[in-house]
Amino acid sequence: MRLTAPENLRFSQAKDFIVTYGGSEANVAVSLANYGVPTEFVTRLPNNEIARACVMALRSHHLSTEGIVYGGNRLGIYFLENGAVARSSSVVYDRADSSFSTLCPGMIDWKSLFADASWFHWSGIAASLTQSAADACREAIEVANEMGLTISCDLNYRRNLWKYGKSANEVMPELVKYSDVLFGSEGEYMNVLGINPVGFKAFDTSYDIDMKGFERVGREVQAMVPRCRKVFIELRNSINANHDLLGGILYSDGSVKQSRIYDVTHVVDKVGTGDAFVGGMIYGLIAYPQDDQIALDFALAASCLKTTIYGDFNLVTVEEVENLMKGDGSGRVSR
Amino acid sequence: MRLTAPENLRFSQAKDFIVTYGGSEANVAVSLANYGVPTEFVTRLPNNEIARACVMALRSHHLSTEGIVYGGNRLGIYFLENGAVARSSSVVYDRADSSFSTLCPGMIDWKSLFADASWFHWSGIAASLTQSAADACREAIEVANEMGLTISCDLNYRRNLWKYGKSANEVMPELVKYSDVLFGSEGEYMNVLGINPVGFKAFDTSYDIDMKGFERVGREVQAMVPRCRKVFIELRNSINANHDLLGGILYSDGSVKQSRIYDVTHVVDKVGTGDAFVGGMIYGLIAYPQDDQIALDFALAASCLKTTIYGDFNLVTVEEVENLMKGDGSGRVSR
Amino acid sequence: MRLTAPENLRFSQAKDFIVTYGGSEANVAVSLANYGVPTEFVTRLPNNEIARACVMALRSHHLSTEGIVYGGNRLGIYFLENGAVARSSSVVYDRADSSFSTLCPGMIDWKSLFADASWFHWSGIAASLTQSAADACREAIEVANEMGLTISCDLNYRRNLWKYGKSANEVMPELVKYSDVLFGSEGEYMNVLGINPVGFKAFDTSYDIDMKGFERVGREVQAMVPRCRKVFIELRNSINANHDLLGGILYSDGSVKQSRIYDVTHVVDKVGTGDAFVGGMIYGLIAYPQDDQIALDFALAASCLKTTIYGDFNLVTVEEVENLMKGDGSGRVSR
Amino acid sequence: MRLTAPENLRFSQAKDFIVTYGGSEANVAVSLANYGVPTEFVTRLPNNEIARACVMALRSHHLSTEGIVYGGNRLGIYFLENGAVARSSSVVYDRADSSFSTLCPGMIDWKSLFADASWFHWSGIAASLTQSAADACREAIEVANEMGLTISCDLNYRRNLWKYGKSANEVMPELVKYSDVLFGSEGEYMNVLGINPVGFKAFDTSYDIDMKGFERVGREVQAMVPRCRKVFIELRNSINANHDLLGGILYSDGSVKQSRIYDVTHVVDKVGTGDAFVGGMIYGLIAYPQDDQIALDFALAASCLKTTIYGDFNLVTVEEVENLMKGDGSGRVSR
Amino acid sequence: MRLTAPENLRFSQAKDFIVTYGGSEANVAVSLANYGVPTEFVTRLPNNEIARACVMALRSHHLSTEGIVYGGNRLGIYFLENGAVARSSSVVYDRADSSFSTLCPGMIDWKSLFADASWFHWSGIAASLTQSAADACREAIEVANEMGLTISCDLNYRRNLWKYGKSANEVMPELVKYSDVLFGSEGEYMNVLGINPVGFKAFDTSYDIDMKGFERVGREVQAMVPRCRKVFIELRNSINANHDLLGGILYSDGSVKQSRIYDVTHVVDKVGTGDAFVGGMIYGLIAYPQDDQIALDFALAASCLKTTIYGDFNLVTVEEVENLMKGDGSGRVSR
Amino acid sequence: MRLTAPENLRFSQAKDFIVTYGGSEANVAVSLANYGVPTEFVTRLPNNEIARACVMALRSHHLSTEGIVYGGNRLGIYFLENGAVARSSSVVYDRADSSFSTLCPGMIDWKSLFADASWFHWSGIAASLTQSAADACREAIEVANEMGLTISCDLNYRRNLWKYGKSANEVMPELVKYSDVLFGSEGEYMNVLGINPVGFKAFDTSYDIDMKGFERVGREVQAMVPRCRKVFIELRNSINANHDLLGGILYSDGSVKQSRIYDVTHVVDKVGTGDAFVGGMIYGLIAYPQDDQIALDFALAASCLKTTIYGDFNLVTVEEVENLMKGDGSGRVSR
Repeated sequence: MRLTAPENLRFSQAKDFIVTYGGSEANVAVSLANYGVPTEFVTRLPNNEIARACVMALRSHHLSTEGIVYGGNRLGIYFLENGAVARSSSVVYDRADSSFSTLCPGMIDWKSLFADASWFHWSGIAASLTQSAADACREAIEVANEMGLTISCDLNYRRNLWKYGKSANEVMPELVKYSDVLFGSEGEYMNVLGINPVGFKAFDTSYDIDMKGFERVGREVQAMVPRCRKVFIELRNSINANHDLLGGILYSDGSVKQSRIYDVTHVVDKVGTGDAFVGGMIYGLIAYPQDDQIALDFALAASCLKTTIYGDFNLVTVEEVENLMKGDGSGRVSR
Repeated sequence: MRLTAPENLRFSQAKDFIVTYGGSEANVAVSLANYGVPTEFVTRLPNNEIARACVMALRSHHLSTEGIVYGGNRLGIYFLENGAVARSSSVVYDRADSSFSTLCPGMIDWKSLFADASWFHWSGIAASLTQSAADACREAIEVANEMGLTISCDLNYRRNLWKYGKSANEVMPELVKYSDVLFGSEGEYMNVLGINPVGFKAFDTSYDIDMKGFERVGREVQAMVPRCRKVFIELRNSINANHDLLGGILYSDGSVKQSRIYDVTHVVDKVGTGDAFVGGMIYGLIAYPQDDQIALDFALAASCLKTTIYGDFNLVTVEEVENLMKGDGSGRVSR
Repeated sequence: MRLTAPENLRFSQAKDFIVTYGGSEANVAVSLANYGVPTEFVTRLPNNEIARACVMALRSHHLSTEGIVYGGNRLGIYFLENGAVARSSSVVYDRADSSFSTLCPGMIDWKSLFADASWFHWSGIAASLTQSAADACREAIEVANEMGLTISCDLNYRRNLWKYGKSANEVMPELVKYSDVLFGSEGEYMNVLGINPVGFKAFDTSYDIDMKGFERVGREVQAMVPRCRKVFIELRNSINANHDLLGGILYSDGSVKQSRIYDVTHVVDKVGTGDAFVGGMIYGLIAYPQDDQIALDFALAASCLKTTIYGDFNLVTVEEVENLMKGDGSGRVSR
Repeated sequence: MRLTAPENLRFSQAKDFIVTYGGSEANVAVSLANYGVPTEFVTRLPNNEIARACVMALRSHHLSTEGIVYGGNRLGIYFLENGAVARSSSVVYDRADSSFSTLCPGMIDWKSLFADASWFHWSGIAASLTQSAADACREAIEVANEMGLTISCDLNYRRNLWKYGKSANEVMPELVKYSDVLFGSEGEYMNVLGINPVGFKAFDTSYDIDMKGFERVGREVQAMVPRCRKVFIELRNSINANHDLLGGILYSDGSVKQSRIYDVTHVVDKVGTGDAFVGGMIYGLIAYPQDDQIALDFALAASCLKTTIYGDFNLVTVEEVENLMKGDGSGRVSR
Repeated sequence: MRLTAPENLRFSQAKDFIVTYGGSEANVAVSLANYGVPTEFVTRLPNNEIARACVMALRSHHLSTEGIVYGGNRLGIYFLENGAVARSSSVVYDRADSSFSTLCPGMIDWKSLFADASWFHWSGIAASLTQSAADACREAIEVANEMGLTISCDLNYRRNLWKYGKSANEVMPELVKYSDVLFGSEGEYMNVLGINPVGFKAFDTSYDIDMKGFERVGREVQAMVPRCRKVFIELRNSINANHDLLGGILYSDGSVKQSRIYDVTHVVDKVGTGDAFVGGMIYGLIAYPQDDQIALDFALAASCLKTTIYGDFNLVTVEEVENLMKGDGSGRVSR
Repeated sequence: MRLTAPENLRFSQAKDFIVTYGGSEANVAVSLANYGVPTEFVTRLPNNEIARACVMALRSHHLSTEGIVYGGNRLGIYFLENGAVARSSSVVYDRADSSFSTLCPGMIDWKSLFADASWFHWSGIAASLTQSAADACREAIEVANEMGLTISCDLNYRRNLWKYGKSANEVMPELVKYSDVLFGSEGEYMNVLGINPVGFKAFDTSYDIDMKGFERVGREVQAMVPRCRKVFIELRNSINANHDLLGGILYSDGSVKQSRIYDVTHVVDKVGTGDAFVGGMIYGLIAYPQDDQIALDFALAASCLKTTIYGDFNLVTVEEVENLMKGDGSGRVSR
């Protein structure tokens, strides 16, 4: 559950918090469901009315929620305060003792869930909370591997979440090695897999991105995770709290591709931009299996649209993303 | 009635719709009433409480509403979703079977209405809905012509509205020929009157607009509508959903004038910008009969201010428009 | 779509309308889905974003929406103004030319839809709008009959809706005759089937209801609809806009049963009370097949709870209804 | 301007104040305009944007506002906190130095205003603020008297407003003596005219009101104001902040009439109940000149409906009041 | 932190939650601060922005907050859904791992805090959460005892909170024995101290309360807690979620006193009614040390007013409570 | 009290006004309190509930409010309408007859208030309202001077407020001469002290500010106010209503320093930017007594953050300002 102070109010000014639901994996799942991909969202929720409201929200986005298991004490919360210009948005995590963080191996029947599935996506946040959640994560990955699913992972490194005594660097590589597809920023590849970053600071819409550097990063990642066919690197240049530049890189089998760069001058909601990229990319890989460049362009256009949508979820259709890919970003009223 | 999803929410996220009233002709009428011009707004509304709320809103803007006739099934609605950056605003029309679209000749007593009037303004939307509404439109124009009123027309071409079996090109020229004053974008002059457009794509605040081309357009329009003394061409360069550049061209008796260009970096509401231009222009022609350049500058400043005001109506005073014409666009707090 | 003026505001005072979704059949379906009964909701919607938002709302309530067909011009709307004390709530219907009212036989594939179904519920509103909608209704009933489904009908008589040239009395009896279960107020049995009403005016919580009279009504209904095993008669005594008394009668095979009477002193939302009764009753007939009295009590408790819930839908669980049946109506905070 | 804390919040809890406009005389004027009586509202307002917003609100209710004069420092404000049960609603007046309180004789051209008028209504609040406002009041009354208008006065005694050194008892009788019609509670007749009250404490819907006592009060008032043909006495029994009983008495030419008593169990807004009575009564006297009983019943039904409407203004139609007079107070949804 | 679904919405309908702060002890403290008693509120909060917003809210109510200590993971939350009529309000506790529940002895410097204090109040909730919080509670009580403070305790028994392996009956008597003043309902005296209840079910405004029974309860409590001079028993008859009857009993030194009974027909907020009683009572004991009856009446009037105020806190002044004690509960607008 | 029309609505569109509290001196005081400086806020307020709500708001920001005196008629109000792009924000002052404007010498016991104080800050607004307020101002300054406090003054010239017959130029120099620290824009130094301005029109982030000119201004100010050690000149380049550039100059003992320039592309709230500069500067002078450049940078960063915060008050911590000074203005989500 995300509780957001309205508009640009500081936490102390807010008299109400706007309730939405989200989280990295849910965001990716909603993206896929919106594009028409049958998607099952699996998590652990407490057995109370707040969790039931969350499930209703997920269902409205055409997700299947039958695989959710119930138990534990509480639904994890994060509080969000929207920044502006030089004042950053601020997140207060309130996930202590959440039902997800007390998930253990054996609680979820992955075999049944994966029976009709072809793709399994997870993110590093799942492994960052507690040892038992990381173990449950490993269990899911191993079952998915045995059953032959495509496995994708978003590294999703958040320094503040790794607090149970192990670092991302100790835990993640063992889990990541099963990945067919990997997502991350260059900083995440560094923090999670130890890859030396390219080290660029900023770019603009005309910037000549260091493609050689990213090719080197891709090569090193693939060396560490030989199974991985696609290494995606997300680029974000945060001009200020209202203004982002978005780009993306795909390394695949020795070659590196670059997306168009989007100039988002009036951001509505930054949260979930990366997840929208991941959701768009997975869709793109499925929908345009022969053309990585189109898939990458789809993912970038999707994440660009996400920045204009309130909440964590990227509520757009394939048609809307494709219109933007074709260049209609003029923002004229469509009537 | 306009039902707008709050802030930047998508339709599916909105838990309430903000109610305002508008429509091309009403917007022009409210502009004029706000500038102190005695204005009568004529339409057909259903005989129910929703329509009565609409009339109250119109009256609050100093319009006279005595000429409205009542009957038919419903008030036309349009739903508006505000876009952002690369996501366009989106309109869902819900005008099927509206009281206006079932307006027929004979329902409105134009002779009485025009008894004290000197100017009649209509727009192409009125003729686009149904054959009977187009006929009623013709009736009004012919009476206005007989009684010697100045007649102005905003071409207002919306492809999606022409659905009763005739095209704008078939219907409009016969109606437009009575116009003393014409408004449109170059695309509208093409679609409605078949004028070859100048074909410019974009401009910025320093852009050298193709005045020769617009002179040619003006000349061709006047050739088709010999009665027309003023041909206005609205220019809008939509950078994205939050950012517009606005300009305007006036062709009159062989010469072409150009307005200052306004750079609207943080649009509040795009809807009604063109109507605000029309309202400002009609006021300008009345208030500054000797100086078309001032009239044109007034219209542009008025439409620039409209983009900063929520809803369809341009709620500004003559003083505010004139302050902007004089150059005070700094946005300092006035206290 | 229901558009409600906030709180107790009159239409003309409302600056926004609260958006919810509802309608007699949808309300019954949501009730059943909330009680855990797998429920498919079938209707016709336009192919636009507003309808998609409606489907998302339905899905969040655990309905299956795969059977919905798309086409036509618009989603039917009704505007609701909440009354208070001696000022009635007021509804403005805006259903002209809705996609449902232009539904025709052949548009919905009832055979597939009914393949796994055991019960079909419809209401008189479906037959009241247009001839073609009534024909589609007949089509559905006949297919349901052939395939051996239990059929229930809520008479749902609204004088203002029968406007296509036939009266309820002409159209409905032919459709109602397939019903296994019937719902209505005594006024509806009179208007739709011509049954002479009992004619009681009001009752209070201690009132001695005329059971003989209602037995006679039940007997006459069954005589007209021999297939019908259960005749339900809803009782509502509207003290004022904030205060209702609710009761219910069941005639079945010669005997008549009466529910407890609920005194609702602070109504939150009157709309959907009858639908909540129907939904509760169908659930009760399924869940307590041996005990009509319990089923009737469940239905009344369900409709009592509905009056406390905003919107058309009765968002309660079986557990909550059963708690009220057991007598816990004290309203103490449950913590 | 009325600034109300939302719902039942205390002033210190409110993060916004709801803006409506009102005031005793404006409330009466809006009532009459809503009933279709051509009504001019005269006051003095400052020359600023806040006052212009106020005028727009008045105009939306079909009032004529041409007679308003502009000048002075500010628009009078009152802050309202809604009570509940045993906690009273609370008003904080903020009228110091308002444009109305600095109104002087000569500022308003009563002769022109009264040229087409047949009735002039004023209230004791106008005379309570300052000497100059009282003088302007006298000026208006005298002109109205000379020009032969019917004059009505609502005594409207508020102890806290008489602060300029004179008591109501000193100022009002001289002004009241021109009245054809008088309104007040028995307390107001005592405080303003010195009439000995009947002294009843409370009544209920079956109460046998002391008609003899009220006849005596009426007789004494008429003795003091011989010109007065109708003496209205408003009765209100405030059970608690949510629950009122309303009644009314009319003394006329020696006889006394009593209205039905309304039991308002869920008050929405108490403010303006008396003004709604006055507005209804003036309309009743005009519309049913031969039948004081109907006029009185109309006024009571009107004030009963006012208690269900947010804000100062009684936003009801003649048809709605007449429906309630005929007894339809059941609050069933009208659809 | 309390997160309340707006108006009467169910959790799943709420798009935002209204943020207020509260909790049994804080509510008592705010009551006292509002009455002008210098009050220090002591608790443990996490070191984040959400807690700082909470402290700002407390400070606005004139509490001193210097004694608060910082640490631990999170601020305890409870979610509140407002019921209506037969649907109870519903609380979902979300206190797992809150900073208060991980409070340990030694964290708070009670000696300094009590240096200038004369009264210490605590409630059973503090002892119900964890063993360490109960130990911290004991520590505070013992220091308060040593330093000669008056000690009061509200038993505040919530079955769902006692989950750390001990029952209230095992833990509380040892802590309660230091109390000079005790608060509870008869159910709480039974559950916490094992006192046989009087067993009354309901009462109305004319009810003849079983004073003998309550005298017996008081005597038995005093026998168990010899130091206790005042035993207060709160009475609440919950007619439905909108309607409460409130009363109170005081046993002191062998005699028993009864308060007036308040009939709250339109409850605004039930939460905190008991705390408002406690706050009013402590104030009463301080302000009217010679007259227990007045003190008791003050406490009841205070708790009656609380039911009309949104949120946990009783935002009333001494003057307002005294006005109600004197009988002005008519709810007339005070202006 | 500030009453703001929501979002970008014009006054006439607003159905509610958002209530916040502010004013030049209060804004400075809140800044200091937020930075942890013990701060007493002194003013005069009426003795009513609105003023009590104001005091609660001030207290929540950790101000001490014991020095406030009560009396007079009303709390001063200003109405604020937020502009956009070329439409300026607009303020309607409603301060006539406010309790502060009727403050007289002798009403406040400055000696006691200053007993533990080391710094006294006042602004020119205090002297602009009435003669008596200016006299009270002088009284405070003289006592502060006698007691050896550091005195700072923000010239705060508002042409519209000087209406009691004297100009700022006549009154202020005599008061300003006691200042150790002075704040103003170059226009204010001209209007209040008669200093010839530098006369720059605009600047951008790369602009080479005329430091020689500002050095001259500083020298002339110090010549007029020899006691003054620090002359601060605020620079604001208002590109449009949403876009400001902010800078600042410090003249001290012959040398002139310049701050970084902040480019605020999406202003949230312009009001209070100058006060945030003053508050930041006073804090900076106290916290970094040896390094004026750091103090100046702190003040600019503080005022830059203010533009992103709703309301008059600058709700930021020292840590947040210092983070911005160190260059983190990227607006990335901090989690």
